[in-house]
Amino acid sequence: MYVLVAYDVDIKRVGKVHKVLKKYLTWTQNSLFEGEITEGLLKQCLAELATKANPHVDSIYVYRIANPKNMKKTVYGVEKDFESMFL
Amino acid sequence: MYVLVAYDVDIKRVGKVHKVLKKYLTWTQNSLFEGEITEGLLKQCLAELATKANPHVDSIYVYRIANPKNMKKTVYGVEKDFESMFL
Repeated sequence: MYVLVAYDVDIKRVGKVHKVLKKYLTWTQNSLFEGEITEGLLKQCLAELATKANPHVDSIYVYRIANPKNMKKTVYGVEKDFESMFL
Repeated sequence: MYVLVAYDVDIKRVGKVHKVLKKYLTWTQNSLFEGEITEGLLKQCLAELATKANPHVDSIYVYRIANPKNMKKTVYGVEKDFESMFL
């Protein structure tokens, strides 16, 4: 399964949320991560995120794509490499 | 076709890029938009973005999902409504 995960969390929690996502997925840009992951590991990732984020204020968006063949990614402009833009 | 579009542009150009994307897609959070769109309208949108963004500095990520049935979106925490968080 391929997933895209976007977060919108209070600035105080950005670092912690980013760190959890980085363990499981690849950072794309700003608050967006993506990668191949199993449902089990994704659940583990979300459980960890639940301990860092505030569900009354923060948002985590998860897009599960059953088969990556159904998705085509195109980058226009500069493709940032993995860590160069890390906070 | 369903698309997710994420942008990473210089702060000076965020407003202009956001405005173009808002014409074609639905704003999800921060620098992420999504929605159902035809390839023709997406091309038009990207052509407009090309006039606003700087390809040597900025990045636009486009994820085309052939059939939205292949994708499942889940929001954890607060689902922000469309305009409440607009810059």
